[in-house]
Amino acid sequence: MSRPMPTVHGVRRLEEAAGRVVEELDLEFSNGERRLYRRLLAQGQGAVIVVAMPDPRTVLLVREYAAGMDRYELGPVKGAIDPGETPEQAANRELMEEAGFGARRLDVLKPLAQSPSYMTHTAHVVVARDLYERRLPGDEPEQLEVRRWPLAELGALMGDPEVSDGRAIAALFIAREWLQEETG
Amino acid sequence: MSRPMPTVHGVRRLEEAAGRVVEELDLEFSNGERRLYRRLLAQGQGAVIVVAMPDPRTVLLVREYAAGMDRYELGPVKGAIDPGETPEQAANRELMEEAGFGARRLDVLKPLAQSPSYMTHTAHVVVARDLYERRLPGDEPEQLEVRRWPLAELGALMGDPEVSDGRAIAALFIAREWLQEETG
Repeated sequence: MSRPMPTVHGVRRLEEAAGRVVEELDLEFSNGERRLYRRLLAQGQGAVIVVAMPDPRTVLLVREYAAGMDRYELGPVKGAIDPGETPEQAANRELMEEAGFGARRLDVLKPLAQSPSYMTHTAHVVVARDLYERRLPGDEPEQLEVRRWPLAELGALMGDPEVSDGRAIAALFIAREWLQEETG
Repeated sequence: MSRPMPTVHGVRRLEEAAGRVVEELDLEFSNGERRLYRRLLAQGQGAVIVVAMPDPRTVLLVREYAAGMDRYELGPVKGAIDPGETPEQAANRELMEEAGFGARRLDVLKPLAQSPSYMTHTAHVVVARDLYERRLPGDEPEQLEVRRWPLAELGALMGDPEVSDGRAIAALFIAREWLQEETG
């Protein structure tokens, strides 16, 4: 039913500036069509997006300066997995650093790709529950504003122009679907 | 209520290989903390993610080779906006190229960021309805498989490991919320 994978005739490493590694793939598709594709290899262990819930109906959002867009972005806690950390450990640490909470219960859901056609970067969606107050110092330049939002009102949240990160939005909806299935 | 934006003390262009432009921002946050941030400037006019509906309960998905992940990815039609095109025109052209349909009705919803902390890249979510058969030749190496999925069952779709693109998933949920509000 599914189409066979393209044949890889070769992989060439094109080293670039600032530690980035770009690869060129020489591919032949099942119809005989041959193409060169480039992709960017992720550095590090990936990332986590943390849907943290102080109660079963509410999600914690943080407001953080986003240099790419040069404005504040409102969304779930997120950050890179440090060497040696599990996704659960990274999620709990980032939650303490960015929102001032720890979680006694962490569920790792789906990995999300940032740009599957060009990048190998992925981020795990993690649902954090049974929260308790605990702050760890992070590397943020300022303490982040924390806001609470009803999980039932994600549609209204989409009207906020400060909510724009595709993976963060996907994480919120995926967590909501998963929680709905869990509670039946 | 909202925190003031950081003061920009300077912007420096760091030119890199392969036409990429990286900028360094010298920022001072409202608490006096000063930091350098890097960001990647998008080339081109942005992109569209097309939630195309052959009927009010069904969405069209295409299965396309994704070099970043080196596997097939299943998701809505998407592509870059060409110079001179509106998002509606780009959405209709990509729909004809990738799925073999045109749309008489196109609604542009929210712009999504790919990585707001590091990139300026955005993609518009476009809902396409009143479809008719029409194929345009695209630049894809092979004709894409087209699948139909019930919009009510996005939760089950999340169980498919070929569905991983954060922005594409966000687009599907955002379109569903918007359509629910529209129909009341």
